[in-house]
Amino acid sequence: MIIVMESGASDGHVRTVVDKIQKAGLNTHVSVGVARTVIGVVGDDRTKEMLRESLEVSPGVERVVAILQPFKLVSREFIPRDTIVSVGSSAVGGSRVAIMAGPCSVEGRDQILATAEAVKAAGGTILRGGAFKPRTSPYSFQGLEEEGLRLLAEARARTGLPVVTEAMDAAQLELVARYADMIQIGARNMQNYPLLREAGRAKLPVLLKRGMSATLEELLLAAEYILNEGTYQVVLCERGIRGFNGHTRFTLDLSAVPVLKRLTHLPVIVDPSQATGKWRYVAPMARAALAAGADGLIVEVHPDPANALSDGPQSLNLENFASLMTSLRPIAAAIGREV
Amino acid sequence: MIIVMESGASDGHVRTVVDKIQKAGLNTHVSVGVARTVIGVVGDDRTKEMLRESLEVSPGVERVVAILQPFKLVSREFIPRDTIVSVGSSAVGGSRVAIMAGPCSVEGRDQILATAEAVKAAGGTILRGGAFKPRTSPYSFQGLEEEGLRLLAEARARTGLPVVTEAMDAAQLELVARYADMIQIGARNMQNYPLLREAGRAKLPVLLKRGMSATLEELLLAAEYILNEGTYQVVLCERGIRGFNGHTRFTLDLSAVPVLKRLTHLPVIVDPSQATGKWRYVAPMARAALAAGADGLIVEVHPDPANALSDGPQSLNLENFASLMTSLRPIAAAIGREV
Amino acid sequence: MIIVMESGASDGHVRTVVDKIQKAGLNTHVSVGVARTVIGVVGDDRTKEMLRESLEVSPGVERVVAILQPFKLVSREFIPRDTIVSVGSSAVGGSRVAIMAGPCSVEGRDQILATAEAVKAAGGTILRGGAFKPRTSPYSFQGLEEEGLRLLAEARARTGLPVVTEAMDAAQLELVARYADMIQIGARNMQNYPLLREAGRAKLPVLLKRGMSATLEELLLAAEYILNEGTYQVVLCERGIRGFNGHTRFTLDLSAVPVLKRLTHLPVIVDPSQATGKWRYVAPMARAALAAGADGLIVEVHPDPANALSDGPQSLNLENFASLMTSLRPIAAAIGREV
Amino acid sequence: MIIVMESGASDGHVRTVVDKIQKAGLNTHVSVGVARTVIGVVGDDRTKEMLRESLEVSPGVERVVAILQPFKLVSREFIPRDTIVSVGSSAVGGSRVAIMAGPCSVEGRDQILATAEAVKAAGGTILRGGAFKPRTSPYSFQGLEEEGLRLLAEARARTGLPVVTEAMDAAQLELVARYADMIQIGARNMQNYPLLREAGRAKLPVLLKRGMSATLEELLLAAEYILNEGTYQVVLCERGIRGFNGHTRFTLDLSAVPVLKRLTHLPVIVDPSQATGKWRYVAPMARAALAAGADGLIVEVHPDPANALSDGPQSLNLENFASLMTSLRPIAAAIGREV
Repeated sequence: MIIVMESGASDGHVRTVVDKIQKAGLNTHVSVGVARTVIGVVGDDRTKEMLRESLEVSPGVERVVAILQPFKLVSREFIPRDTIVSVGSSAVGGSRVAIMAGPCSVEGRDQILATAEAVKAAGGTILRGGAFKPRTSPYSFQGLEEEGLRLLAEARARTGLPVVTEAMDAAQLELVARYADMIQIGARNMQNYPLLREAGRAKLPVLLKRGMSATLEELLLAAEYILNEGTYQVVLCERGIRGFNGHTRFTLDLSAVPVLKRLTHLPVIVDPSQATGKWRYVAPMARAALAAGADGLIVEVHPDPANALSDGPQSLNLENFASLMTSLRPIAAAIGREV
Repeated sequence: MIIVMESGASDGHVRTVVDKIQKAGLNTHVSVGVARTVIGVVGDDRTKEMLRESLEVSPGVERVVAILQPFKLVSREFIPRDTIVSVGSSAVGGSRVAIMAGPCSVEGRDQILATAEAVKAAGGTILRGGAFKPRTSPYSFQGLEEEGLRLLAEARARTGLPVVTEAMDAAQLELVARYADMIQIGARNMQNYPLLREAGRAKLPVLLKRGMSATLEELLLAAEYILNEGTYQVVLCERGIRGFNGHTRFTLDLSAVPVLKRLTHLPVIVDPSQATGKWRYVAPMARAALAAGADGLIVEVHPDPANALSDGPQSLNLENFASLMTSLRPIAAAIGREV
Repeated sequence: MIIVMESGASDGHVRTVVDKIQKAGLNTHVSVGVARTVIGVVGDDRTKEMLRESLEVSPGVERVVAILQPFKLVSREFIPRDTIVSVGSSAVGGSRVAIMAGPCSVEGRDQILATAEAVKAAGGTILRGGAFKPRTSPYSFQGLEEEGLRLLAEARARTGLPVVTEAMDAAQLELVARYADMIQIGARNMQNYPLLREAGRAKLPVLLKRGMSATLEELLLAAEYILNEGTYQVVLCERGIRGFNGHTRFTLDLSAVPVLKRLTHLPVIVDPSQATGKWRYVAPMARAALAAGADGLIVEVHPDPANALSDGPQSLNLENFASLMTSLRPIAAAIGREV
Repeated sequence: MIIVMESGASDGHVRTVVDKIQKAGLNTHVSVGVARTVIGVVGDDRTKEMLRESLEVSPGVERVVAILQPFKLVSREFIPRDTIVSVGSSAVGGSRVAIMAGPCSVEGRDQILATAEAVKAAGGTILRGGAFKPRTSPYSFQGLEEEGLRLLAEARARTGLPVVTEAMDAAQLELVARYADMIQIGARNMQNYPLLREAGRAKLPVLLKRGMSATLEELLLAAEYILNEGTYQVVLCERGIRGFNGHTRFTLDLSAVPVLKRLTHLPVIVDPSQATGKWRYVAPMARAALAAGADGLIVEVHPDPANALSDGPQSLNLENFASLMTSLRPIAAAIGREV
């Protein structure tokens, strides 16, 4: 940690800062430059972090520069090797690209079974589908709830595909965990800390989606909450950030993929459906995500998008999903992976 | 609702759209322009909204333009007069500007009592203080929980100031509601729908903070969830949005104040502390918020910011808070209000 | 064009709008809904566009919705087939992906000749290099100016690679056009209209970079300025937009590629060097750009990035550029193109 | 300057960095922490800045942290006292708030004279009006050019109000400077460096508007270009940044006002017309700007906004401008200034 003093800081200001640091058991190195004084701090990281805000308001301090990353368990420095997350009989993070696919919402038995079979046939590896839906408007369809979970389990029994589905609230976790193979935490809940903690205790792998304006540090700290409860099986998902471009629903931030792969050992997947909001742009962005190094995709697929109860405009129909899968194979091969 | 067809749309495409609309019991008006065909839809709004996504994916459709606002109960069209929200013996929304002030976190008895008394003495109208804290890092102080709520209640008993404090999770609501006069829903939980619904059932006024990249429609739809459960006593709060300017923590979007006042009957307040992240900028932005027409402020105040357990850098000390209050009076008077 | 009236608009308000439209020689269709009145306008587009702002301020008008795109010559509706832009002996826009590569700044004879030869050997198709440099700080290296242009011409003579280089000002255009095969207009000048007009008259192809917070409409309207002067040989370039993610310099908005390819007939390339600001992320984002459907790339390459006078951190050295080219071939093949 | 090494950096990596720094004549202090090594650099600032990019690409370096601000002449450290900028017989930066007002475009003699007289009568201090207009579309009205300048000069002769008007290109400067009292550089040209340099040589005060996604450092460095040519009479203007809120054209970033006032000695004004894009929100945001500490405003005023050739929707009519002026007086008084 480094404290940069204001150009007009007095000796007394510097001494106050140094005293505060030393009283906390840390060492200092004071460097008096032409324009301003800089104080380096050496010692225990947790202590430094606890001092940081206090030093920021000490008179004469211009700013405090943190040297270390604020996260630990998720960092590649802590675990250098790629984590492979097991989801039922499937996995996310190895050389085979994970393809999570299925409808935005489970709407009924025929819909989910037809989708699951088409996903399986086209080479998808995990079935997605929402039973509890976070909808912007209270007047939109809110999901089939437990009935939706039961149908997902039936689709798993039929196809062998493990199931990922969202929990919106800590109180829902027990119910969701009874049916799912992987718990999804949605973008709107990325900083719902009671939910993160509960998910970390549920003994299931977790799919954590990036909040729509979260920095990568905030995403990694949200994952840190889960790992801190004992679950190291976490997959991160880039799903588009808030932008000013009206042609897509969000701005897909694909450079987050190589940056995250450098900062963390956790697998990183991409959601081109939520990001673009338009089925027409899902395939090119899915291909781009793999080329950028993503460990997988999560894609919305519906047998009849024009009659979907949610997210129809961004859902691929079964035929377009099969075409997408075909087009992904040579891209994966080009970077030494397989679909 | 208006459907704009692509320039290459065929007669068959247009007929499919018209049939779908008429089958839903709505009327259409087709206007064939030089460059493209436009279809107007007349009839029940709820039906239109349910058709929207389906029409968007109909072949040949370029886009669907909604004419009506997606929210109802919160809109000024539904309730033209300003809502005044009662908080204990105080109120938000009338000619007197509401000043919610207090520490980010309740840290102990002396701290909260000293702050409450100073807030009262300087003219504050509501005491704020966090007992459950949503912290970006799992290693930060997470709040005193129920003990914090008890101390807030004691401070209320001592000063007469009603208390606003945050609930982070639907399961916490009952406990928080036992002690608080107003329930705060934080920016990170603006789209935590189970929490919004539960808050709407708690028979207490709600302070709803704008998510850090929420549009005003999303904020109003989040409030709509609460009103839809029967609670019309909701205060909206602008607290800064995610931006690229590193000098402040967030970008305070003050034009949201007059825009929201036009769209909704609910009161609108501003949080200059969270927005700027630096105590130095709290006073000018607090004055600007009042001048822009805000119905109140929520400000972080701490007797000893340098030793605060959270948000010290953005907290005013007791003396600076008193000065701020003094400087607000002529601003309020200038726009025909009082502090 | 559609005019949405406020819910409280009077008959007089509606009549004023209708009169204004009809006086301009356009036809109206008035649709009186339950909640509000909507007025459709039919007739000449240019006339509509000129009326738009006037209607927006007419009393009782809530908003005016434009149906047509504001650009013409650049639109795919105007020219349905892909434009192929010829740059000297090379081209941008066909099945062969264009690779523009070279240093940020021309720094000297040895540097530019060594780079040009390495670019040529690795399969690059166009040489880039700056002679006039728009630098954020007045104290940074500002380019070799005409001497830089002469060295670029020498590198072209030596390698046969056509040259693209930036003009920062209308007054520089004649000089730049004397040496270059393609004129680059940088992101900071995307809305420098005198420069756009002059470039449109220079009889050379133009590379137009997206401004760092430009919408796609603004980019296309900037290109429209150039086409409007008679030059239809324009290449658009996505180079990252301003975001809040500190790990890369800008946020590369790759979904702009398929969106632009749908809206316009002009070729679209991507600059992963400017976008990421770090050489480490250039290769994955270059691969992603091709997979997303880009017609080419512009990449910064320098024989000795650690001693570059500008943009060293984001420049590939010669060896890394050759590796990148190798890795791009199977990606291009996977989408039916070649490098 | 501080260099943070990667956690896996070798002794050789550290030595390479230290050697490079010492060879440039600077001193180093190496601090070996538990997790990583940090190297402090002491010595001449210009040399440090020139080394920065080179150090960033040195193997084993994680990042380089600059301690000093990248700008000099504009900084408050260089000139501690507020600069007062003289504009003809008027001034910007003293206790009297400057009010620049007038039409977006000069459209004709009657329009500009009527506006100028109303501005003068209501207490405006400087007349604004565009003769050369940067328009997003090539099909929009582009300004009256020299005829517009002549009319502005006539309005000045009639009212005594000094004139501020925009130059869009270095080549226009001589002409504009012949008629204007202050040269405006628009948001789209904030980083048009040939224009900035030429403006710095024109011996007239300059009004520099913030680019629509410029950081405050970029704005200050753009001003630095002007001061570096010898003109210290520069006024900065916050005019809204690109955001995602569709209700206003841009997001007015009012916290830029107190932040800039802290960083620089130059006066700072606010443009609520461009920022909001809607006349309805101009008055509240103008009041907020003064309350935040702005040294002035620039406001669009038109005698007949419904028939304006540009920016009608955001222009106040003469009556609304007079009301605004009346409402500003007590706000200014509240913060110890006058209108």
